[in-house]
Amino acid sequence: MADVAEAVRAEAAALHRYPDRDAVALRTDLADYLTVSTRVVLSEANVWAANGSNEILQQILQAFGGPGRSALGFEPSYSMHPIIASGTRTDWVPVPRRPDFTLDTERAAETVRERQPDIVFVTSPNNPTGGSIPLAQLRGVLAAAPGIVVVDEAYAEFSSQPSAVELIAEFPAQLIVSRTMSKAFAFAGGRLGYLAAAPAVVDALQLVRLPYHLSKIAQAAARAALRHADATLATVHQLAAERDRVVEALLGLGFTPVPSDANFVLFGQFADAKASWQSYLDNGVLIRDVGIEQHLRVTIGTPEENDAFLEASKEIPR
Amino acid sequence: MADVAEAVRAEAAALHRYPDRDAVALRTDLADYLTVSTRVVLSEANVWAANGSNEILQQILQAFGGPGRSALGFEPSYSMHPIIASGTRTDWVPVPRRPDFTLDTERAAETVRERQPDIVFVTSPNNPTGGSIPLAQLRGVLAAAPGIVVVDEAYAEFSSQPSAVELIAEFPAQLIVSRTMSKAFAFAGGRLGYLAAAPAVVDALQLVRLPYHLSKIAQAAARAALRHADATLATVHQLAAERDRVVEALLGLGFTPVPSDANFVLFGQFADAKASWQSYLDNGVLIRDVGIEQHLRVTIGTPEENDAFLEASKEIPR
Repeated sequence: MADVAEAVRAEAAALHRYPDRDAVALRTDLADYLTVSTRVVLSEANVWAANGSNEILQQILQAFGGPGRSALGFEPSYSMHPIIASGTRTDWVPVPRRPDFTLDTERAAETVRERQPDIVFVTSPNNPTGGSIPLAQLRGVLAAAPGIVVVDEAYAEFSSQPSAVELIAEFPAQLIVSRTMSKAFAFAGGRLGYLAAAPAVVDALQLVRLPYHLSKIAQAAARAALRHADATLATVHQLAAERDRVVEALLGLGFTPVPSDANFVLFGQFADAKASWQSYLDNGVLIRDVGIEQHLRVTIGTPEENDAFLEASKEIPR
Repeated sequence: MADVAEAVRAEAAALHRYPDRDAVALRTDLADYLTVSTRVVLSEANVWAANGSNEILQQILQAFGGPGRSALGFEPSYSMHPIIASGTRTDWVPVPRRPDFTLDTERAAETVRERQPDIVFVTSPNNPTGGSIPLAQLRGVLAAAPGIVVVDEAYAEFSSQPSAVELIAEFPAQLIVSRTMSKAFAFAGGRLGYLAAAPAVVDALQLVRLPYHLSKIAQAAARAALRHADATLATVHQLAAERDRVVEALLGLGFTPVPSDANFVLFGQFADAKASWQSYLDNGVLIRDVGIEQHLRVTIGTPEENDAFLEASKEIPR
């Protein structure tokens, strides 16, 4: 926090000047972070940044979607994918996941071959269900897709699976991996989304990005947060261990948690999820009803918060 | 600067939380600022804010333009109007200004009646030429327009003309006044654009804005800058006086400056503007070639900077 504040203080004297519209220093830092965390060597030419991953996704849809084009996604998934598609007048093609929320990637590849969407969204780990897709299966979707495949890795740091960044060299004209600092970096208030792709994909986004879209303050604050990546990732590992403990405990209580590689756990079964959500709240525990029947979603917190949640879970009507 | 830095420091502890997606506190402060500076009483329901006026303009075009719709502007003007129109697939209808860069508003109203554009852009003071449009003439354009009229007032604080904000009550379904903190507030690095309109227009923009588009840091920094509006506007008045001095001096040197209500002056005539621009640079003075034949644009600086510019102007080949 002190380092973010100091970084902004240092910029304050020059706020009358426009920011670096290409955000080269920030993109270099993001590339270094990805290089260290995925072991795939990337440079700033592979990386683009914007005000939250929503703006990243909008820029992708502006560049590669639009009227007369289509985007396909496997639902339930991140609710902004169809909304941003609609905002850019890109047709949205929803394809259901299996009843257990996993993705049948062979059938997914078939559907992609059949529907020929300009853009395919694969969220891994998936939001709001938590599972991720192994690289071998992602490769099948990429091989089937006629155009862009966006792998939305907002929750990647919490996953034990390797990042899709490993596949960029193999699918340079297709693959975009989107990321955010909101989750692992606990930087949701700073609004910093980014992507990794081949340099030509990053070049294409320059056609639609607004000049000076990312303020000096945003760039400086994100760079300060990135300097603390090691400490951040240590916290992430602790959180992943807590998540696994919560899943085990929920199983022990007779719930059916969905296997999760993210910082949340979707779990059931509830006869009336809405009533159970209210019952949690009445017990002093606020979790989320994400609109999936018979299920609720808990975000992993501190060990004490997780204990309080598990204690409350014993009393909840199902 | 210290206040901006302190405001961000105070937010740093809560950056793991998402920002207020409706930015109510910031919009209230912007409404108060407009109320004081235009004497038109506005509330936060009349105001919307985004990452620079470019994002404001993009949101307007997303909501009211798009495929099958058109936007009309009087050129030369702000170069981003046609670019953002293109980015949202809105047809662009360019209409030339008079050779002296003023707007023949009667003919403009006729053209608008004839072409029936969904959106009309009027930049006042105009960028890059500097002149503004009296309210009586704006009223004629508004009366002729079938849809939205965006009055782009990026440079309003430097103008002696009243703001188009005065016309919102009269044309609530049509008028949007866009503003920026980049110029008068010397906050270009902070990227804060905003608009004033009737509440129903602000509501319509909620359909296209991205959730959490404006970071906690951006909101806090802009609010800190707004607390210093009085000092900022005092500087603006000094700058306007310097601008008038520069115009007089250029006339005295035999140049033909275009009357300006902004923080810059477009002036000619140069046989070869590009060569003259280089000659200024060779004399240690960096001004702008904005692509208008026989003309260059100087941004008003400190009295010493303006003196250096005027001194160099004596030597420049025309």
